[in-house]
Amino acid sequence: MTNNLKEYARAVAAATDETLQGLLPAEGIFPVSIHQVMRYSMFAGGKRIRPCLLMASHQACGGRFGDEQALQACAAFEMFHTFSLMHDDLPCMDDDDFRRGKPTAHKAFTEALAVLGGDALCIHAFGVLARIGRVDIISETADALGTGGMLGGQVVDIESEEHAVDRQTVEYIHHNKTAALIRASVRTGALLANATAGQTERLSSYGTHVGLAFQVVDDILDEEGTTEQLGKDAGSDREKGKATFPSVCGMEESKRYATELIEQAHADVRPFGEQGAMLRELASFIHTRIS
Amino acid sequence: MTNNLKEYARAVAAATDETLQGLLPAEGIFPVSIHQVMRYSMFAGGKRIRPCLLMASHQACGGRFGDEQALQACAAFEMFHTFSLMHDDLPCMDDDDFRRGKPTAHKAFTEALAVLGGDALCIHAFGVLARIGRVDIISETADALGTGGMLGGQVVDIESEEHAVDRQTVEYIHHNKTAALIRASVRTGALLANATAGQTERLSSYGTHVGLAFQVVDDILDEEGTTEQLGKDAGSDREKGKATFPSVCGMEESKRYATELIEQAHADVRPFGEQGAMLRELASFIHTRIS
Repeated sequence: MTNNLKEYARAVAAATDETLQGLLPAEGIFPVSIHQVMRYSMFAGGKRIRPCLLMASHQACGGRFGDEQALQACAAFEMFHTFSLMHDDLPCMDDDDFRRGKPTAHKAFTEALAVLGGDALCIHAFGVLARIGRVDIISETADALGTGGMLGGQVVDIESEEHAVDRQTVEYIHHNKTAALIRASVRTGALLANATAGQTERLSSYGTHVGLAFQVVDDILDEEGTTEQLGKDAGSDREKGKATFPSVCGMEESKRYATELIEQAHADVRPFGEQGAMLRELASFIHTRIS
Repeated sequence: MTNNLKEYARAVAAATDETLQGLLPAEGIFPVSIHQVMRYSMFAGGKRIRPCLLMASHQACGGRFGDEQALQACAAFEMFHTFSLMHDDLPCMDDDDFRRGKPTAHKAFTEALAVLGGDALCIHAFGVLARIGRVDIISETADALGTGGMLGGQVVDIESEEHAVDRQTVEYIHHNKTAALIRASVRTGALLANATAGQTERLSSYGTHVGLAFQVVDDILDEEGTTEQLGKDAGSDREKGKATFPSVCGMEESKRYATELIEQAHADVRPFGEQGAMLRELASFIHTRIS
């Protein structure tokens, strides 16, 4: 990570966390347990990648760094992401006891609180988006999260476990489970800057390419990386019989594909010139994790 | 139920179901399983009480019966309600195998699909509200569903099981778990008819009183009613050690309170005159179930 990017990521994460602190109900508010599990999961060490992409996209379209509406959206997208992790980790899904070295929500609290706490973050995030006042963003985000997006990817991911799957299925899972919400974050940054249709279209494509690259690189690191690089146990996907890119295409093709996706992401944002510099750096950073 | 009300309820249910048919992804659309569980749960014999209240409130404020936006909202509120039931029924919560004589979602499908299918209905419903184009309704509904409303009630309900609770706690549970979403349905009908602040305020109060009455009557029937009247096994709340009104206040006080709530609901809608007739009939019907 370049110093430039490191500083940027740190600044976005700090501003997002401050916004989240203000938006999430305090832990002492009745009923205490659900507010505790919400905050526990939101502040469990997430890297705030979606907020970084949202803010960088916002700036690429002429928006101001730290714009209040953009920060509210950053917080909302991080809530959506955390909601999905809380439900993914449940015993009836991926059955993960740890995430980033900390007990998952249902281990630290109860299964009921992990379900309801996830529900609450999702619902609260829609409330935050509503108070920004843009129904277009709410409508798009609901589509990105629903069965034609993130949840669809999650269903196929679960149903593909321990089954022989083809490349098309893995692409479907990554495209929906991971890339759909990343694309929506990038699009939201653009829409809040009142980007042109052409700009939004290019950033949409960038979001898809970066989202897919992010997941393919994650798959590669699961095979080759260290637990530290990955933020979770290396090899855990294979142990669970997860459909991954290397498992269907081999390592060489996976790396070639990741490189191609990053090149496409770079091409998508070329017309933004200097204003798109951070988006290019973010894409490059994903690639450096495997090179 | 008067013939008048019976016909009205049947007409609203039919129009809501037709709207739902158009809004929910077809079962054949990939990934099939989640679309199946969504439709299975949505068409499992719900009485469409929230849509009835929404439409009656809409008309009380001068809206047209069967107005397209009101019907979209009816469908959305029924999705929110079904989402809550799917998660409530999970093994880690109420652990119910049957609802209205049919296997619950996690029994007919899998636990993972009950969680994700519930998530999908909630998210899809927000998308439907967004396409109506009213951020005020989305913001209010998110608050009604969140930890200051329905989910808060659900948490306290679960945490009160097998514990000695007081009347205040039971009122909190009923106020939030049941009445909050009912009140939001009634308010939404008013807001879509561009009701005055005064009208919306009165209907808000009506929604709270009817919502509480509905739940108190349900508690009474759980003790005294037949399984048919109740739509679920009589006595099941007691068996689960649920916090109910009769268990903290006794049967006589519960009946007195239900009567008081219905009278308050009637008073709330008195100024609406003839246009509020259906709201009065709906309130009275709740009461006839125990008288």
